[in-house]
Amino acid sequence: MARRAIPDIVVGRLPVYLRALSFLIVEGRQITSSQELGDRLGISSAQIRKDLSHFGEFGKQGTGYDINFLYDQLRQILKVNRMWDVVLVGAGNLGKAIADYGGFAGKGFVIQAIFDTDPAKVGKPMGIDNLMVQPLDALGEMIHAKGIVVGIIATPAEEAVAVARTMIDAGVKAILNYAPITLTVPSHVRVQYVDPVVGLQRMTYYLSTS
Amino acid sequence: MARRAIPDIVVGRLPVYLRALSFLIVEGRQITSSQELGDRLGISSAQIRKDLSHFGEFGKQGTGYDINFLYDQLRQILKVNRMWDVVLVGAGNLGKAIADYGGFAGKGFVIQAIFDTDPAKVGKPMGIDNLMVQPLDALGEMIHAKGIVVGIIATPAEEAVAVARTMIDAGVKAILNYAPITLTVPSHVRVQYVDPVVGLQRMTYYLSTS
Repeated sequence: MARRAIPDIVVGRLPVYLRALSFLIVEGRQITSSQELGDRLGISSAQIRKDLSHFGEFGKQGTGYDINFLYDQLRQILKVNRMWDVVLVGAGNLGKAIADYGGFAGKGFVIQAIFDTDPAKVGKPMGIDNLMVQPLDALGEMIHAKGIVVGIIATPAEEAVAVARTMIDAGVKAILNYAPITLTVPSHVRVQYVDPVVGLQRMTYYLSTS
Repeated sequence: MARRAIPDIVVGRLPVYLRALSFLIVEGRQITSSQELGDRLGISSAQIRKDLSHFGEFGKQGTGYDINFLYDQLRQILKVNRMWDVVLVGAGNLGKAIADYGGFAGKGFVIQAIFDTDPAKVGKPMGIDNLMVQPLDALGEMIHAKGIVVGIIATPAEEAVAVARTMIDAGVKAILNYAPITLTVPSHVRVQYVDPVVGLQRMTYYLSTS
């Protein structure tokens, strides 16, 4: 499997396939097809077959995919058949929503520590795991000590650049950035962006104005 | 300008360019270049020039881009040189964080109404504009009455499908979906997804496990 040859856009669709498979499992289903997955996801069945073919042979012509098998395989490919410790920086409204989110469980991620600069927040428990919010200047040491490689930034834009630098210097290699700013990072670090304004503006382009 | 020929991936980069320009404006800058923008965004300058060339001629060889002019042009192209009314469904932790978010101001969007099914939340004020949370069964009528075309879904996955259907039936054409589920929508409707798990899983693929 020549992993380096796989386009990032293909990799980006795998978590969406995994999510769809998890719904099928909840529905008690055993077998699915690229056609059914495609219909559910608004993606052509040919695209799904082509995407999956990068990683191996997961179904047989005419019999479809074994849902549990494909689910396990995709978890393995995405390396989420294990737990990744995550640091979260920002304990404001958004950080609180992320810390309270139950959707990480079973998906490969567990928030291990939460940081903020606000003395009013530091020392207070937050999130589903009741983690004590820690002062931001403890961030680097914690990442380093625990060997954490995944970080979430939920700070204002002004603070995100410095937070990212601290994360990366301490060993973080994957950042989910909710701050509305593009981060400049070394080539060994990946960033995924979550900015509702960018999502909305990308759609208004197509709307008719009257 | 043959708008239909412009790939969606190009459209998707315009809000990111717009965001970078807004930082340059705050910094008091007048002129920028595709090289500088590219350095800030981790995109090649050639890509930026090519993307912008779809929409017209915004800079002169050797003199760069007038920042305010390009900013205004991109706002016009993305149709965010006006305000779009938005309905938000879901007044839980995430909905509250979205309603409290100050980042929509000046970017083209204003949340006009918030809906939830929880009787404990309905009737209480929420967000920076102190909007009274309304019962979900009032959603369709409000969208229809106010001619709203943009919606944000911040509900659990189980409720998102029905909420999207109500939105679309009432006239919504653009949905920002925070619920971790793919929505099946008619071709005249666009959806952008925000799922932190998908963002994180897309990155763990590239991480080494030890």
